[in-house]
Amino acid sequence: MSKIEINSNTAPFPKPIVLVGSEVKGRPNFITVAWFNRLNGLPNIWGIALGKNKYTIEGIRENGSFSINIPSTDLIEKTDYCGLHSGREIDKSALFDVFYGKLANTPMIRESPVNAECTVYEYVELPKTLLILGEVKHVYTEERFMTDGVLDPAKIDPIIFTRPGDNYRALGEILGDAWSIGRE
Amino acid sequence: MSKIEINSNTAPFPKPIVLVGSEVKGRPNFITVAWFNRLNGLPNIWGIALGKNKYTIEGIRENGSFSINIPSTDLIEKTDYCGLHSGREIDKSALFDVFYGKLANTPMIRESPVNAECTVYEYVELPKTLLILGEVKHVYTEERFMTDGVLDPAKIDPIIFTRPGDNYRALGEILGDAWSIGRE
Repeated sequence: MSKIEINSNTAPFPKPIVLVGSEVKGRPNFITVAWFNRLNGLPNIWGIALGKNKYTIEGIRENGSFSINIPSTDLIEKTDYCGLHSGREIDKSALFDVFYGKLANTPMIRESPVNAECTVYEYVELPKTLLILGEVKHVYTEERFMTDGVLDPAKIDPIIFTRPGDNYRALGEILGDAWSIGRE
Repeated sequence: MSKIEINSNTAPFPKPIVLVGSEVKGRPNFITVAWFNRLNGLPNIWGIALGKNKYTIEGIRENGSFSINIPSTDLIEKTDYCGLHSGREIDKSALFDVFYGKLANTPMIRESPVNAECTVYEYVELPKTLLILGEVKHVYTEERFMTDGVLDPAKIDPIIFTRPGDNYRALGEILGDAWSIGRE
């Protein structure tokens, strides 16, 4: 079959879903983000792209820090809820069991299998979003999400976002090992 | 159970796997990238973070453009191969059926269900990587990857990378609809 050109305003690849935690006006707030990934190793830098009007940005700018919380699939309803409503209109501080680590004013979600405290490394202004680069300072989990002392993606059971269709999905089966299956 | 702090040099969330195409020294080259996501809508901007020594960067800097090719799971061996070997040492130009769209010197992979031509929007220098922001100019696919005229993630059948373990995985089942399942 031959290639056809389609509308270029699309992004049809899987995206990881995370909950970004910040303290805005003294209150814990959480926003659902799919435009997220690692951008540098050593230092470990993760990036989130947020619409410029997002309430979360006020807290991150004020505190210079934020948290990344990886929700498992059993948190799907609350995760969606955090993407549906702005902290400007709804108090999300009691939605989760909030805990704190070593950074001040950086709320995290106890129910999330993995939590990371980040300090702002850099802001990159884009036309509609603010790309916030955070340096990962501390990472927390529980023993039950590890196998032989290492985090286990299957136990974390993360949520994946796919568009078009705008669905939340689970991780699928292992197909092969990276840096291995392509050796001849 | 209680939270424990673990080594912060981790990134235990799923990442989309793409093949970045560029023409380096007049020859098509492809590199496997997992540090990739959308960063802005309208204009549609996607970002890739590449180790600063990557051969691909020479081609992108020279041409001001690159392609993003979303491989399906049946391309897993060739996708891994492109991550194992540098274009400095190995000629990857015959690995795929290469085609061109509207941008000069921007090779794409016919076997990939979705291909995007991007022009460089901005470079962001990070300690170990170069974050390359590309504006998506043209997107190509085939009818067989669409359902009712819209791209279908299940038909695209993308590859997801999970770490720790460094595995390639398939998309899992649909768990719910975004902007819906969290409504009460």
